[in-house]
Amino acid sequence: MPVKSSKKKTVKKAVNKKSPKKVKYIYEFGKKTDGSAKMRALLGGKGANLAEMARIGLPVPPGFTITTGVCTYFYENRRSFPKSLDGDVRKAIKAIEKQQGQKFGDKKNPLLFSVRSGARDSMPGMMDTILNLGLNDETIKGLAENTGNERFAYDCYRRFIQMYGDVVMGVQPIDEEDHEPFDEILDTLKKENRVTEDTDLTAEHLKELIKRYKKLIKSRTGKNFPQDVYRQLQGAIAAVFGSWNNDRAIVYRRKYNIPGEWGTAVNIQTMVFGNMGDDCATGVAFTRDPANGDKVFYGEYLINAQGEDVVAGTRTPQSIEKLKKAMPKAYLELDKVRKRLEKHFKDMQDFEFTIQNKKLYMLQTRNGKRTGMAAVRIAVEMVKEKLIGRTEALKRIPADSIASLLVPVFDPKEMHKARCIATGLPAGPGAASGKVVFTARKAEEMKRKGERVILCRVETSPEDIRGMLASEGILTSRGGVSSHAALVARQMGIVCVCGASDIKINYARKSLSVGKVTVKEGDHVSLDGTVGKVFTGHVHTVPSEVNQVLAGKIKPSKSPMYQLFNTVMQWADKQRKLLIRTNADTPQQAKMAIAMGAQGIGLCRTEHMFFEGDRIDFMREMILAENEGERQRALKKLLPLQRKDFVGIFKAMGGLPVTVRLLDPPLHEFLPHDDASRRALAETLNVSVEKISERVKSLHEENPMLGHRGCRLGISYPEITRMQVTAIFEAAAQVAKSSKKIKVKPEIMVPLVGFMGELKNQMAIIHEVAKSVMAQKKVKFDYMVGTMIEIPRAALQAHEIAEDAEFFSFGTNDLTQTCLGMSRDDSGNFLPAYQELDIVANNPFASIDEEGVGQLVEIATQRGKRARKKLKIGICGEHGGDPLSIKFFHKTGLEYVSCSPNRVPIARLAAAQAALNGH
Amino acid sequence: MPVKSSKKKTVKKAVNKKSPKKVKYIYEFGKKTDGSAKMRALLGGKGANLAEMARIGLPVPPGFTITTGVCTYFYENRRSFPKSLDGDVRKAIKAIEKQQGQKFGDKKNPLLFSVRSGARDSMPGMMDTILNLGLNDETIKGLAENTGNERFAYDCYRRFIQMYGDVVMGVQPIDEEDHEPFDEILDTLKKENRVTEDTDLTAEHLKELIKRYKKLIKSRTGKNFPQDVYRQLQGAIAAVFGSWNNDRAIVYRRKYNIPGEWGTAVNIQTMVFGNMGDDCATGVAFTRDPANGDKVFYGEYLINAQGEDVVAGTRTPQSIEKLKKAMPKAYLELDKVRKRLEKHFKDMQDFEFTIQNKKLYMLQTRNGKRTGMAAVRIAVEMVKEKLIGRTEALKRIPADSIASLLVPVFDPKEMHKARCIATGLPAGPGAASGKVVFTARKAEEMKRKGERVILCRVETSPEDIRGMLASEGILTSRGGVSSHAALVARQMGIVCVCGASDIKINYARKSLSVGKVTVKEGDHVSLDGTVGKVFTGHVHTVPSEVNQVLAGKIKPSKSPMYQLFNTVMQWADKQRKLLIRTNADTPQQAKMAIAMGAQGIGLCRTEHMFFEGDRIDFMREMILAENEGERQRALKKLLPLQRKDFVGIFKAMGGLPVTVRLLDPPLHEFLPHDDASRRALAETLNVSVEKISERVKSLHEENPMLGHRGCRLGISYPEITRMQVTAIFEAAAQVAKSSKKIKVKPEIMVPLVGFMGELKNQMAIIHEVAKSVMAQKKVKFDYMVGTMIEIPRAALQAHEIAEDAEFFSFGTNDLTQTCLGMSRDDSGNFLPAYQELDIVANNPFASIDEEGVGQLVEIATQRGKRARKKLKIGICGEHGGDPLSIKFFHKTGLEYVSCSPNRVPIARLAAAQAALNGH
Repeated sequence: MPVKSSKKKTVKKAVNKKSPKKVKYIYEFGKKTDGSAKMRALLGGKGANLAEMARIGLPVPPGFTITTGVCTYFYENRRSFPKSLDGDVRKAIKAIEKQQGQKFGDKKNPLLFSVRSGARDSMPGMMDTILNLGLNDETIKGLAENTGNERFAYDCYRRFIQMYGDVVMGVQPIDEEDHEPFDEILDTLKKENRVTEDTDLTAEHLKELIKRYKKLIKSRTGKNFPQDVYRQLQGAIAAVFGSWNNDRAIVYRRKYNIPGEWGTAVNIQTMVFGNMGDDCATGVAFTRDPANGDKVFYGEYLINAQGEDVVAGTRTPQSIEKLKKAMPKAYLELDKVRKRLEKHFKDMQDFEFTIQNKKLYMLQTRNGKRTGMAAVRIAVEMVKEKLIGRTEALKRIPADSIASLLVPVFDPKEMHKARCIATGLPAGPGAASGKVVFTARKAEEMKRKGERVILCRVETSPEDIRGMLASEGILTSRGGVSSHAALVARQMGIVCVCGASDIKINYARKSLSVGKVTVKEGDHVSLDGTVGKVFTGHVHTVPSEVNQVLAGKIKPSKSPMYQLFNTVMQWADKQRKLLIRTNADTPQQAKMAIAMGAQGIGLCRTEHMFFEGDRIDFMREMILAENEGERQRALKKLLPLQRKDFVGIFKAMGGLPVTVRLLDPPLHEFLPHDDASRRALAETLNVSVEKISERVKSLHEENPMLGHRGCRLGISYPEITRMQVTAIFEAAAQVAKSSKKIKVKPEIMVPLVGFMGELKNQMAIIHEVAKSVMAQKKVKFDYMVGTMIEIPRAALQAHEIAEDAEFFSFGTNDLTQTCLGMSRDDSGNFLPAYQELDIVANNPFASIDEEGVGQLVEIATQRGKRARKKLKIGICGEHGGDPLSIKFFHKTGLEYVSCSPNRVPIARLAAAQAALNGH
Repeated sequence: MPVKSSKKKTVKKAVNKKSPKKVKYIYEFGKKTDGSAKMRALLGGKGANLAEMARIGLPVPPGFTITTGVCTYFYENRRSFPKSLDGDVRKAIKAIEKQQGQKFGDKKNPLLFSVRSGARDSMPGMMDTILNLGLNDETIKGLAENTGNERFAYDCYRRFIQMYGDVVMGVQPIDEEDHEPFDEILDTLKKENRVTEDTDLTAEHLKELIKRYKKLIKSRTGKNFPQDVYRQLQGAIAAVFGSWNNDRAIVYRRKYNIPGEWGTAVNIQTMVFGNMGDDCATGVAFTRDPANGDKVFYGEYLINAQGEDVVAGTRTPQSIEKLKKAMPKAYLELDKVRKRLEKHFKDMQDFEFTIQNKKLYMLQTRNGKRTGMAAVRIAVEMVKEKLIGRTEALKRIPADSIASLLVPVFDPKEMHKARCIATGLPAGPGAASGKVVFTARKAEEMKRKGERVILCRVETSPEDIRGMLASEGILTSRGGVSSHAALVARQMGIVCVCGASDIKINYARKSLSVGKVTVKEGDHVSLDGTVGKVFTGHVHTVPSEVNQVLAGKIKPSKSPMYQLFNTVMQWADKQRKLLIRTNADTPQQAKMAIAMGAQGIGLCRTEHMFFEGDRIDFMREMILAENEGERQRALKKLLPLQRKDFVGIFKAMGGLPVTVRLLDPPLHEFLPHDDASRRALAETLNVSVEKISERVKSLHEENPMLGHRGCRLGISYPEITRMQVTAIFEAAAQVAKSSKKIKVKPEIMVPLVGFMGELKNQMAIIHEVAKSVMAQKKVKFDYMVGTMIEIPRAALQAHEIAEDAEFFSFGTNDLTQTCLGMSRDDSGNFLPAYQELDIVANNPFASIDEEGVGQLVEIATQRGKRARKKLKIGICGEHGGDPLSIKFFHKTGLEYVSCSPNRVPIARLAAAQAALNGH
């Protein structure tokens, strides 16, 4: 009685201190179940689902969950616990003891527990676990007797001591050179007894081992291994909560955007054993195939083993089908459970089970991780099965996973031929294999000979573009996912791994090396741009079915993959509000984008047109011109070429809107940088090398990103604008004349505007040219003039700019660079550390920085629309293909996003998800 | 009668069309005067002051002013006039005819007019003027008879025809090669008659000339020179209004920030002649000496001449004192007028007069342009004379003009020795003379030999700093007023002319050339950094008196110049709300700034300390370190040196606040760029040249401005922050211990913050070091931690940043670069054109771009103060010394501006003016 009253007091105190109501710290599951699947936030994923399984009558070993609220308390109160917790724990254990007919700490019939973490989102392997808790020098005897297996019992005990000593008492290697101390003792013992396998150790060996383990703990910590089972439990609970903030867990959370405030729950569950004999087993299974989504029972198991053995790979697990023969009754039950689980949870489940003396126990279930492909297939098929609705299906497919339906992949049968030598950033998804070359020129040369090549450069520049286009894949040792290589690769759909910094490239020796591995020009290399891996050796790739259908090589009806793709896209198109346009610079890209579902071109970069064939020479002639007359002559040569491109693009787009950006990059990007190319150019243009070098020098800029580019060029050299606009309008006139079906309406986009006067200046030229082309060609066509919003001033002055601009298109790449004062190309030196240190959550060049750049987007949208109600607003930066950013753009109320052709399907889905999430 | 009624109708129509009330288009002056000096906006400066002079009874030839409103009407209505104007003009002329007893267009006693422009602000020589209007083949006879001087009359007529033909009828040179067609005819005639001077032409010659002039007009325009005097007048009025938008006028307005909407008025005034004989004269005079402000009658005149002759320089005018003897009565009257004018206008006047047959006429008066020196002196003396009050005096001194009291100047007696060869931007005011050198090293070497040198570079870089410091003046051929050269020059008070693009520098030949002039190393060159002029030859300079007083070399009481300076400063200090701090990096600069009146250091750039002596080598050692340990060792060598600097600065500032900015520039700025220096460094540090080159390469950035700099360095290399902060705090501790009087309170400023986490990261280090230094040195000192707001994201997230930051300091240089997406160093390629094209009003690096950058300043100020009420906010960019920008900062409610030491007095005055202008 006095004990009880004292407990009550403690509870009261805690209540007075922390909250007016008694907070429930513990939720039981088993015969009595308090929790449910809906309580993930409080019980963590594991705890909530254990409760749910128990609730629907599945065989779950009884236990209880300490809530994430306790974790919060723990960290807010210098790693201490609410006073009432201990009493609650004891009460819960008493209930289990009653249910199980066993007793925690009992010599004869001891109850044992596992203590496991369980966060709201799964963080596999990141936090600590303790098994067999409750064993001590006394209870061990009961376990040995009850199981009739002394060796098994002592093996459990020594594993427990090791785990506890490591996790709770901190007996760990002293430094990096040090061995795992428990393993060292084990190895010594094995040597002494001349046995090689753990399983060869006898019960007596294990007893000796336990003695030595205890001694190690004493000598390292000054403390004895605790014999009091409640003390054991207290220690374990504290250790698991403590592991929420270990380094691994923090890094993992950062990577997967899991907030530190969430905390973990702790699950204390009655131990069941899959390793008590041959009528025992343990396994992991999925309700469907997580690799391809097939609706089959997929999983593996081991007879007479513990859960960790399945994962550890020391023994090879059996495919789950074999369980049917080995333990028919258990299998049947398991298959029933599997079906029940999926029906109940309405999603593909990944679950763990143990069979102890033929009896099945469920230890965990959760939504199964799956490949992009499987995600799509499972979602679509579950709709057909009426398990879920279409909108739920759409929400469930990570938008990025659509990409996996579109990229070529390595033939899995050939992967043994490859050896991974380095990892970089996954910059252009897909798989590519070919001979390595180190210069763009060599890439072109080999391509002409019919070879497949992988272009490997420290970094790439616009000069390399033809060589890049000639390559199957691009590998760089420097630069991030927004470097030139990555940008071009994504734009062109080329496989790319970039910033693989372990790779040292030696241009002189025409080789690359990683550690001791050296790869020479012509050797085979394979790239997996989806994951960022670099392999030596050649592996065949297989093009995606969807792409083959889109290219008209397979009939849609013949491709189940395409059917899946098309179904998801159709569902998505019904939901989304955002239009999806594409960034395309050529008729081929435009066609591809249309096939992918693009609803217009949001960004046609005219400068890319200047690199093909002779054009680069005309362009260079223009740049080297000494006066306007010379410049006009060179521009005259470029005019018909640009016009032809635009005709092709307008035709390919069949009347969909096409936004053409006027020349944007600084002129020096077009000039050759090395001596040989300069000499060649000098000959072609019949000028001196000195003149070229001088011009390169005079065009040099300290910060080209902030230099003489964008509309600043068009203002300095109005004749360039005039030529480009003439080409656009003449093309529009030509297409308008040739086809009555196609209603061309070019949208001319003036880049890098910051001042109202800049736009006015360029608009005057544009309108003048439009008038003159219409008069000359005797045809009328519609057109719009707008601007990119890509520097902060433009966003802040949007109301003034919108007086003239008929549309805005956010250039979020440059807007990010200027708003953050951060060069995309140079940020690789510090941005990774910023992510490590949690200064930025995401790479702002991959997902829009909502708090900074996003504010400018909002400001510009509001002010722009205030000045011009019907202002059309879109975005054409790289962020246009990023699902997180698309969500933001939807919320901000833009009309469209524009992204590279092969991200169009992703954008379609992401836009639908944004709409469904009700922003 | 019918005529009258028709006129009325016209008036009515105009009224109905344009405004409900009859608008007054014409203001008369003379016997009846409608206008006054207050009506500048409507009548223009000339018209308003003519009216004012007439109003107070000064002898003004009668006339009338057509308002600037008509100019606006003219441009808004396709260069047409209000219908009622013609009638009003005729009416006004009738009134003058009555007054003068002459008639416009009369054969016998013809009234003649001048037609002159007159804008609100004076635009001397920019617009057109017509004299002698009203002469034709008939009236010329009357003029000849009345003056009794046929030659004079025909000379007037031929001048009138030439002027009218040129200005109104557009008979001008056809292209650049073409001669002035009227002059060509004149020359031919002179040759035919074998005379050399115009004055040698007889009346007959002039008649012939008139014939030929008329023929020229007819052949060029197809029209006859008009004989109808009213048609003459209409044409002249239209031409003068039209000249408001001629190229010259537009360029001038842009330069002086005169809005195009203001328009000009047109003044039509009875002609008086200073060239009718020896009892005639014409002259220009000032009520005080405009060069030095002396209260003397200052001016010049010519007997028997027209106004243009005084300006043209064909005859040398006489000093005004001589008029006393030549025409005692007129002189006396003139001197009375002079005194009257100043008393009435309460400012120094610049006026024009004509004496016709001994009678004085006043043709114009306006506030006289004056040098900076004169502005100060006149303002102060007028206060003493009780003409104006102190606040009026403060408003009247252009803040920049204070600079002219502080800079060394050329000895005017020696200017004949110099020849101006080029003009650049006035980047560092003052005068300097010395031998030209082309490398920083040579500058140092010559300086050691006791030579005065002018360092001439295409542009300068931080490596050149010691050479720059060794030079009297710096001349660059590239870069704007905010280039490195200009920044350093202003900071260090070195004379600088930058961006003198006509100068071609040949480093190899060690020479510069402009056209055919070549200057070799060692030749003498002189720079006037106040106006941006480059001279060959040597001219002695004289240091300013004020500086000598401030340096303690002259007693204050002995220097009238200092008295003036001090008076203005004291008046200003009473008015201003803004505190004025200084940007100072050394104890000397700090002392200088204190003498100039600085109230603290707003920006102490620690990196400049690293360039002196051996330090640069330690710094380079640090940068070349391969790991943290090596870096620590190098930093350890820098620590005592930095500490010593801070001790010096803290002592010099005597307890005034000192804001120290942590390392800001990218590390590559500290490494040597040329091979020789790299070899030298390799030897010093005992590393390989390859290693240095490799590090230079690896540190290379595409856009260093947006790269790895500012707090990004301190986050990547926390040991750098730790060393710097240790030096600051140890210095604070040392000074605190050594002197009880000086209460040191360092303000640590973290540069380039964009994310809250960046500041938090650096703050953790700062607080930790502070704690440890206090414990170690057993002394407590106060300190603050704050940040620069220099990228748009920081401004937008000011509320979050202010949660940690105790102060903000706007780095408006970088904020301008990022907000405008415009590199300061590269903007020289397009910014001048932008100013030409009116896209930007001012250079945004000189005066803050209020609409863009200014918005960010306002946003950050509001948000920052919302989060932290007592947030201290200042600005330390170059704009801190710019009067226009200071006005804006005052309005925005900042606490202080910080500028280079020698701009402190300017800032003090500008801050007072901002306060007085009541924002």
